[in-house]
Amino acid sequence: MSGPLITLTTDFGGDSYYVGVMKGVILSLNPAARLVDVTHAIPPQDIRAAAWTLEEVAPYWPKGTIHVVVVDPGVGTERRLVCAAIGDAWYLAPDNGVLSRLAMRREPTTIVALSAPEYRLPQVSHTFHGRDILAPAAAHLSLGLDPRRLGPEVDRLVEFPWPEVSVMAGKIQGTIRSIDSFGNLVTDIAADKLADVPTDPEQVRVRCDEHETQGLFKTYGDQPPMTLVAIIGSSGYLELAIVGDSAAMMLGVRAGAPVAVEW
Amino acid sequence: MSGPLITLTTDFGGDSYYVGVMKGVILSLNPAARLVDVTHAIPPQDIRAAAWTLEEVAPYWPKGTIHVVVVDPGVGTERRLVCAAIGDAWYLAPDNGVLSRLAMRREPTTIVALSAPEYRLPQVSHTFHGRDILAPAAAHLSLGLDPRRLGPEVDRLVEFPWPEVSVMAGKIQGTIRSIDSFGNLVTDIAADKLADVPTDPEQVRVRCDEHETQGLFKTYGDQPPMTLVAIIGSSGYLELAIVGDSAAMMLGVRAGAPVAVEW
Amino acid sequence: MSGPLITLTTDFGGDSYYVGVMKGVILSLNPAARLVDVTHAIPPQDIRAAAWTLEEVAPYWPKGTIHVVVVDPGVGTERRLVCAAIGDAWYLAPDNGVLSRLAMRREPTTIVALSAPEYRLPQVSHTFHGRDILAPAAAHLSLGLDPRRLGPEVDRLVEFPWPEVSVMAGKIQGTIRSIDSFGNLVTDIAADKLADVPTDPEQVRVRCDEHETQGLFKTYGDQPPMTLVAIIGSSGYLELAIVGDSAAMMLGVRAGAPVAVEW
Repeated sequence: MSGPLITLTTDFGGDSYYVGVMKGVILSLNPAARLVDVTHAIPPQDIRAAAWTLEEVAPYWPKGTIHVVVVDPGVGTERRLVCAAIGDAWYLAPDNGVLSRLAMRREPTTIVALSAPEYRLPQVSHTFHGRDILAPAAAHLSLGLDPRRLGPEVDRLVEFPWPEVSVMAGKIQGTIRSIDSFGNLVTDIAADKLADVPTDPEQVRVRCDEHETQGLFKTYGDQPPMTLVAIIGSSGYLELAIVGDSAAMMLGVRAGAPVAVEW
Repeated sequence: MSGPLITLTTDFGGDSYYVGVMKGVILSLNPAARLVDVTHAIPPQDIRAAAWTLEEVAPYWPKGTIHVVVVDPGVGTERRLVCAAIGDAWYLAPDNGVLSRLAMRREPTTIVALSAPEYRLPQVSHTFHGRDILAPAAAHLSLGLDPRRLGPEVDRLVEFPWPEVSVMAGKIQGTIRSIDSFGNLVTDIAADKLADVPTDPEQVRVRCDEHETQGLFKTYGDQPPMTLVAIIGSSGYLELAIVGDSAAMMLGVRAGAPVAVEW
Repeated sequence: MSGPLITLTTDFGGDSYYVGVMKGVILSLNPAARLVDVTHAIPPQDIRAAAWTLEEVAPYWPKGTIHVVVVDPGVGTERRLVCAAIGDAWYLAPDNGVLSRLAMRREPTTIVALSAPEYRLPQVSHTFHGRDILAPAAAHLSLGLDPRRLGPEVDRLVEFPWPEVSVMAGKIQGTIRSIDSFGNLVTDIAADKLADVPTDPEQVRVRCDEHETQGLFKTYGDQPPMTLVAIIGSSGYLELAIVGDSAAMMLGVRAGAPVAVEW
């Protein structure tokens, strides 16, 4: 038999020892827990990036997985921490919008505010609730604790102001939502919105800031090195890439930049 | 039942494949070992940073954990490698000071020099004792080997010249001991030394190099973005932070800089 | 009993969440799998660096380990993905040369092209075959699947144009093959080729680009800080290092630079 799975998603950077501290806390409470890092490279305090990452990663994880998320610019202020059941998995996170994209796809079935002192570390700091509150809650949950013991149920998660993707005749407008580790520019334009775009590359222009390319392609390999290419990425969203290089570095584009597909 | 826990703390950087090599060595000897990374982002050859990290991480790990530490600027010279029991855990490390902060908190109960050839790899290189000596020793220990089989007992660990924190009437002087992954400046001034500091921010000045701020606060969120703030960090030590940004980058402060609290 | 070992070696960088996605896919199919990261810091799309890393890491891993390798500049083009038995271990990788150094040491005994749709994810993207093809194949293999079920057997792996190391009377010429995480310059000149080099440092010159040093040493500690030194590294290959610093940064040398040992 294999122990319960607990994943970690944080903005602690590189391989900060803060991660090592949280793992120690969890394993001290449940030595059988199996800890897996999703990523610790969320840009510091970037709730938006964390929300997109969770949306993309979560569907691939087994039923019953406990996901711990620490991207928490409001640590020590009045923001609450929650345990939420979304789909088949559990999420322990600050209630600051990091779970909002998951919650747009599937309504959370249970949401609990993490307030019960008996499932926290004896001393709770003002600056590291990942260690003091989220890690112990995850460990207790993995031991079979009823999540409603963690605190009172709450009605809904905090909402988050996501920019709209606008779909018009012959034009779709969206936003660069994140930069992946290859420097590809990932947009918030989902593949299903692109169904009407002509297949002839000559008829399609994709623009981002002052940069422009023609056509939507299936793969980077379809174009010569160092050219800008628009593809449907592995996440199911439109991406802009420089073949064999980092588009983010070459073009100086950042998350939040406007993107348009015109035909 | 879950296998024995072995953690790794190194200065190998990012996710160097040297870590992958050490994990292979351990799992070849004890396939049931459970390996967890504490961090591989100790600044290269920075014994001081490693010692502080271990002091901060160790208390959160379960009894019986085997911690392997590879920060080893003297690899291949006469420095010895040791296995030390400190508190409830085992540490395998070069005897160069990396264990000295742990040992200041709790006297080691057993210290053994790792010299027995039968618990090393058959070929020992001059430059990678983490792989050739520490990893196999950790694996054998995790299999239940009596640590005294690893080599002769020794009396004490190498001492390390830690700077003094001076506490005077109305003034405490210390040092920036490390920079965390958010760029916060962590000092060596423990919270208990700050008991006499007035709570009125107007009466307290905190200086570091030529930078200055007023008051000791509980959390980053108490101050507006981009201001310098002094708080008791999650490690239990005084920290200086720029709200929402990296103090190390903004101020150009490095480990070793002097810090003073005056009132 | 401990679950089957699956390692991951990729160029995804830092700790990209793409790794977290692959781990989710594997654990969804085989919850008992034990996942270990070898490295995710292969330079982007650098088949050469990946091949050297695998050659160096593989010997230290237990019999039966399943190694997944995702360094795949040709993703989405006609390159095939393979499962290969080399030595005692299994490798799942694009057939682009990443396995070629391993295969030079030991002839693969089974090579299978990964084409069976039933062992892929239901939807296969054009850009992330690590997730859609390699991860599920690894999971099925770890569950005991006969590898020949993954697709048709093929005769041989793609060959790769490795530069020659030339050994002459009084001179050996090679190449910097990679930079390690300390900035040491690792060459492709194996220790056994250096048997005839005189032990007197005065009689030996080692050159790399316009830089030069005298003698072959056993360890960094034999020379004063900030000097260039040539040693036999822990990998069993000649390395050039700056004592206490990064030779790659200080000298501006990159992979591919020529190296000569003369006496």
